[in-house]
Amino acid sequence: MATETSFAAFCPRYHRAVELIGRRWSGAILRAMLSGAHRFSQLSELIPGVSDRLLSERLKEFEAEGLLVRTVIAETPVRIEYHLTEKGYALLPVVEALATWAEAWIAPVTDDSPAGVLSLP
Amino acid sequence: MATETSFAAFCPRYHRAVELIGRRWSGAILRAMLSGAHRFSQLSELIPGVSDRLLSERLKEFEAEGLLVRTVIAETPVRIEYHLTEKGYALLPVVEALATWAEAWIAPVTDDSPAGVLSLP
Repeated sequence: MATETSFAAFCPRYHRAVELIGRRWSGAILRAMLSGAHRFSQLSELIPGVSDRLLSERLKEFEAEGLLVRTVIAETPVRIEYHLTEKGYALLPVVEALATWAEAWIAPVTDDSPAGVLSLP
Repeated sequence: MATETSFAAFCPRYHRAVELIGRRWSGAILRAMLSGAHRFSQLSELIPGVSDRLLSERLKEFEAEGLLVRTVIAETPVRIEYHLTEKGYALLPVVEALATWAEAWIAPVTDDSPAGVLSLP
């Protein structure tokens, strides 16, 4: 199979990508940003369980990696928004592929689940 | 965009999937297995930098998650092989999408790189 053969050599770029996206909570934050969340408070609401400290750390990492830009809007009070860059949006097919796999292969959680999230495809 | 809207709610199954694949070295091990590596020594060779201890731990996790089966072949000496299950192979589109993104957006490494790995697409 051609695709398999092309994976044979170790690829440091793939490795860097998977370790970046795979950091704790990074995948969930990325998914929430792809859904259109731009504010810290929106992200925090969309991702139950992530602490403000960790969310803040991950957003800084994403900014340093060029996945998002942080915009300060001069209002009172000052408003801060996070927007994915082209590089960040380009991760959409990865998130979609993983979401598809999860729907097919990861069993639905049955306790303490937000309504409407866990129905099978 | 329909795809984005469908991401709005937090999805524990997606979250579990990304945290599983994203564990340190898991992405690289999965990629090597998709390339057809079945032996511990092959995996160890294909993934420079991973310790035997961590590789062994990750293979046990993959087995516990049903991504691979461990087969003991009764030869002298005993031969052990790891084969991806259907669930494990189903991650191929995820690895492909991430590899494509990495080729487009992660800069090639220039030092200490194995020959032939880092050419641009």
